[in-house]
Amino acid sequence: MNKYEYLKNTPLAEAVNIYKEALKSAGVTYNIETIKTTSALNRMTAKAVYAKRCSPHYCASAMDGVALKAEETFGASESSPVKLNKNSYISIDTGDPMPENTDCVVMIEDIIEEENGKIKLYSAAVPWQNVRKIGEDISMGDMIAPSFTTVTPSLIGAFLAGGVYSFEAVTIPKIAIIPTGDEIVKGDSESLNDGDVPEFNSAIFSAMLSEWGAKSEVFPVVKDELGLIKNAIIKASKECDAVIVIAGSSAGRDDYTANALKSAGALILHGVAIKPGKPAVLGSIGKVPFLGVPGYPISGIIVMEEIFKYILPLLTKRVYEKPLEFEAKLARQTVSSLKYKEYIRCRIGFIDKEAVAVPMEGAAGVVTRFAKASGIFTVPQDSEGKRRGESVNVRLLKPLSELENSVLVVGSHDPLIDEIDDILKRGGSKTGISSNHAGSMGGIMAIKNHEAHLGGIHLLDTKSGEYNKSCIKTYFPNGGAVLIRGVGRTQGLMVEKGNPKNIKDLKDIAEKEVSYVNRQRGSGTRILLDFLLDKQNLSSADIYGYTREEYTHTAVAAAVAAKSASVGLGILSAAKIYDLDFIELYSEQYDFLISEKAFEDERVKDFLNALNSNEFIERLTILDGYTFESLGEIIEIG
Amino acid sequence: MNKYEYLKNTPLAEAVNIYKEALKSAGVTYNIETIKTTSALNRMTAKAVYAKRCSPHYCASAMDGVALKAEETFGASESSPVKLNKNSYISIDTGDPMPENTDCVVMIEDIIEEENGKIKLYSAAVPWQNVRKIGEDISMGDMIAPSFTTVTPSLIGAFLAGGVYSFEAVTIPKIAIIPTGDEIVKGDSESLNDGDVPEFNSAIFSAMLSEWGAKSEVFPVVKDELGLIKNAIIKASKECDAVIVIAGSSAGRDDYTANALKSAGALILHGVAIKPGKPAVLGSIGKVPFLGVPGYPISGIIVMEEIFKYILPLLTKRVYEKPLEFEAKLARQTVSSLKYKEYIRCRIGFIDKEAVAVPMEGAAGVVTRFAKASGIFTVPQDSEGKRRGESVNVRLLKPLSELENSVLVVGSHDPLIDEIDDILKRGGSKTGISSNHAGSMGGIMAIKNHEAHLGGIHLLDTKSGEYNKSCIKTYFPNGGAVLIRGVGRTQGLMVEKGNPKNIKDLKDIAEKEVSYVNRQRGSGTRILLDFLLDKQNLSSADIYGYTREEYTHTAVAAAVAAKSASVGLGILSAAKIYDLDFIELYSEQYDFLISEKAFEDERVKDFLNALNSNEFIERLTILDGYTFESLGEIIEIG
Repeated sequence: MNKYEYLKNTPLAEAVNIYKEALKSAGVTYNIETIKTTSALNRMTAKAVYAKRCSPHYCASAMDGVALKAEETFGASESSPVKLNKNSYISIDTGDPMPENTDCVVMIEDIIEEENGKIKLYSAAVPWQNVRKIGEDISMGDMIAPSFTTVTPSLIGAFLAGGVYSFEAVTIPKIAIIPTGDEIVKGDSESLNDGDVPEFNSAIFSAMLSEWGAKSEVFPVVKDELGLIKNAIIKASKECDAVIVIAGSSAGRDDYTANALKSAGALILHGVAIKPGKPAVLGSIGKVPFLGVPGYPISGIIVMEEIFKYILPLLTKRVYEKPLEFEAKLARQTVSSLKYKEYIRCRIGFIDKEAVAVPMEGAAGVVTRFAKASGIFTVPQDSEGKRRGESVNVRLLKPLSELENSVLVVGSHDPLIDEIDDILKRGGSKTGISSNHAGSMGGIMAIKNHEAHLGGIHLLDTKSGEYNKSCIKTYFPNGGAVLIRGVGRTQGLMVEKGNPKNIKDLKDIAEKEVSYVNRQRGSGTRILLDFLLDKQNLSSADIYGYTREEYTHTAVAAAVAAKSASVGLGILSAAKIYDLDFIELYSEQYDFLISEKAFEDERVKDFLNALNSNEFIERLTILDGYTFESLGEIIEIG
Repeated sequence: MNKYEYLKNTPLAEAVNIYKEALKSAGVTYNIETIKTTSALNRMTAKAVYAKRCSPHYCASAMDGVALKAEETFGASESSPVKLNKNSYISIDTGDPMPENTDCVVMIEDIIEEENGKIKLYSAAVPWQNVRKIGEDISMGDMIAPSFTTVTPSLIGAFLAGGVYSFEAVTIPKIAIIPTGDEIVKGDSESLNDGDVPEFNSAIFSAMLSEWGAKSEVFPVVKDELGLIKNAIIKASKECDAVIVIAGSSAGRDDYTANALKSAGALILHGVAIKPGKPAVLGSIGKVPFLGVPGYPISGIIVMEEIFKYILPLLTKRVYEKPLEFEAKLARQTVSSLKYKEYIRCRIGFIDKEAVAVPMEGAAGVVTRFAKASGIFTVPQDSEGKRRGESVNVRLLKPLSELENSVLVVGSHDPLIDEIDDILKRGGSKTGISSNHAGSMGGIMAIKNHEAHLGGIHLLDTKSGEYNKSCIKTYFPNGGAVLIRGVGRTQGLMVEKGNPKNIKDLKDIAEKEVSYVNRQRGSGTRILLDFLLDKQNLSSADIYGYTREEYTHTAVAAAVAAKSASVGLGILSAAKIYDLDFIELYSEQYDFLISEKAFEDERVKDFLNALNSNEFIERLTILDGYTFESLGEIIEIG
């Protein structure tokens, strides 16, 4: 039985320090191996490297010409050239060794050949001219690189020039990664049952370690059992230079990592005041560092990045450069706990040349959205959050140029936005898209607040029945935004193939025993639902599942396909992907709202060019369910 | 016979553009292959990647607790708890699929267990609380990444989460590297004869290509013969995606690259207005790009970096980030030709928080010094150079933090400076050393001009016979510098083992038929020579080789060891490395001059700590020929 113990909440800097010092005391250190210089790119020297020979290793001619003794040419000038006999000079090519009793080379272009092998010179030579002297680059015994130097391409050249064909390097440490959990299956399992949790953290961590100059060995998944986990830790600690155990790092019923470590080695610290990532287990098994990371991918990534990366230099001797930080204006307030240092992912866009950071929603399990984040900023442990408009230091996760070249799209979700991104990429454009699904109202607000360049909107004016135009008039009474005609879409009810519940209209949903899956507040699709309910005198209270919110058409379709819900409102293309039946309800207009300033932006022009391309029409046709009359035209708001 | 043709001098930007457009017209493009996601780090997607399944792929409990239908708890409060029978809820663990007819999870901590399996709840549950909904992270059909996206660790996670275990990636192009030249031998040949030129450019280029996401195949060295080179080019173009030929790229007697290309494929351009690197050959063989690079390593590196890297995206589809540029104040003027865009290597140091760039000497053949450069700045084609104090944009070759943490040492050469660097590195100090051999006088001037933190000096006051003190008085009459006691060294004549020329004194050099090798102007060793000559009433004109200048003690020793000179003046440790005989002449004092401001600098303190360490004494003892009385003490200049 696992005894429940509360986790500590040690501040991050203190935790890392305690961990590092304990590991040093335990004798954690790097290994050394001899490696070939030609395959040494990015490796670390373990000792100072000295030249074993001079480069060049002999005095060589640096030109094609003749070698001679300079003093024999002294006094030569245009008016009184010096003539030399054929035994006073020797023909020489670039790279040839300097013959004895010569100390300079005269270029072939400066020589006039005469009869009998004589030559004539119109100017005097200077001793050692055009000679590459022995050791000109480096002399035997000179230090080429001190200990713990990263080997660059030119350093490979310098080592070879100095006759160093192999040298002692820091061994690349091998890190054991042990995934645990009863429900865990391999991340690339072809078929998954409900309840199977595919394990892909090991692949993420392996890649991170590879970027940090370490390698990894992923061990088989271990079931939640103290003895099994302990045995796996002991085995791994004998075969590897550090051990990472994934999941079970907290202090709950099935969390065995800390106790397994205690019986296999030494627990240094359990619980760090960061969010996500709090239940980290820091320890050692003899001279082998140990880390227990939480099972959620983002928690694990943060613990690897913020804790493990700081002790890894004990094994790699590398200096990890601080990632590029960038100041940006926060687009939305974030609320944070006083108990933890919090890590907030965000998207960055450049609006009117100012960097704007839009915090991203999503729990610690959403690795896909993490992969799309531009960067991370932190809220200190003693702070309750950051205000809107406050400036934050964002650690970039993408190259700055990519962020600078991105159109920041905030608004209603439609797969066509991703397709435009791909069209831009394939066309070789620098411009890319960074898009946030915030619903039509979210898009309007973001553009109004200068937090986005453009957004997709489909907002029905329930009085006029008109799409988009009248809403823009309401929210931009004094102008400031341009409306561009997008596509017509068919909204309808997505139901299981064959429509077993025989749903034909919204009325059926209210009356039958079915569960609905809705979209988030502010989304055009939800507003459409409310409008249609109202028209039929139905109440949202009659719809079971009205409060269940999803953020995309495909997420709604997925819920229906998995029978987690019986029906949801969405677009035809989403229904098609999930092979669902589709009951057409309404034709709507999905347009693009662009801030007036952004309309002149080169990136937005690229976006609109892609929108107007034949390629785009072709893709919409494949997606199905779109009409594209007047696509790309400016709509007069009037 | 090779017909001589003059090279063009096309401006760089124009040349790259012509080259790229010609290659595009020739149909140069990338290949596609299917690769496994788990080994896809840093690879490029060749097409947009869509999720093949939802993540999570089912609705899962996010907590340990009980699953139930939220509406059954409505109304529960502290004062009126709701009781549920055992058939109204189902026990559930984190990750378990949500049972049918349940829509939320209540945490185990919030449940009071009663008799007969009943449970009591003191607050109402909200539908979908503690549930990880299907597709919460990503839904099937959503685009995870567009075309030409670099795969990061978190993107590997996102692909696996979306069920993408393999995908179509851009094939890593294979670049043929063909070294040419009659005198060329393999770079790691164990024994070298005079006239052998070891070939290590291929290793440098291979490493550069590897950093750029390409791989290479180094072909055997080809002799300077048109037919052989042509055949090698044709063979390589069939096996690889691009062909690089090293050396022979100019238009001289033995330069066959351009003509070989013309007979194997198409010459696009020959000669680019850059220095070094002018004689580049740009062309194609069918759909295979061709590049001829000059034989000198630095010329080759510049051509690879400035030309090849710009056409490589045709094959890799990568976007190469611009290297970090940094503004620095030029410490010394540079003179440049109006004919070329020139690339000047430099060292960067931070003096009084200002970045100072010191241009480095050295021909295009000196790869070791290139490897030590902090960065490169350029002088435009239409400029005659840059003035001292002018600000230059330096493209960094080292991490900025390394430059910020470096002590800039300019002065007299002694191997002990490199040893101090290694002591710092081994001790885990962030502080490093960037040293320039400029002689004692060079050091004094650099410190006076705020271009260095400190320098080693050994300057004899020929009147008083005193070392350093009186010179400092002369050059720093109003203070501004601190003199720290360094080491005593023995200067002497280095001669071939066994002293075959029987040299015992300077007099012998003047009288006998021997050749001397001197040090550069301004060096303490040369000043000592002049002093000793003067004392013996000898003239420099009597010394054959007096004008032959080397920059280090080891370079002088190397010249003697290679019998390129008979004798040179230098320190014992250098003579020992080359196993030379040593005739003691003078005991001198080698001290450290430190600018007064730098004396308070943390980096300089680290330097002085290393100077005062036992480790340093041990290393000096091994080097031999040093005394260390009062080492590290401040010398009163008075």
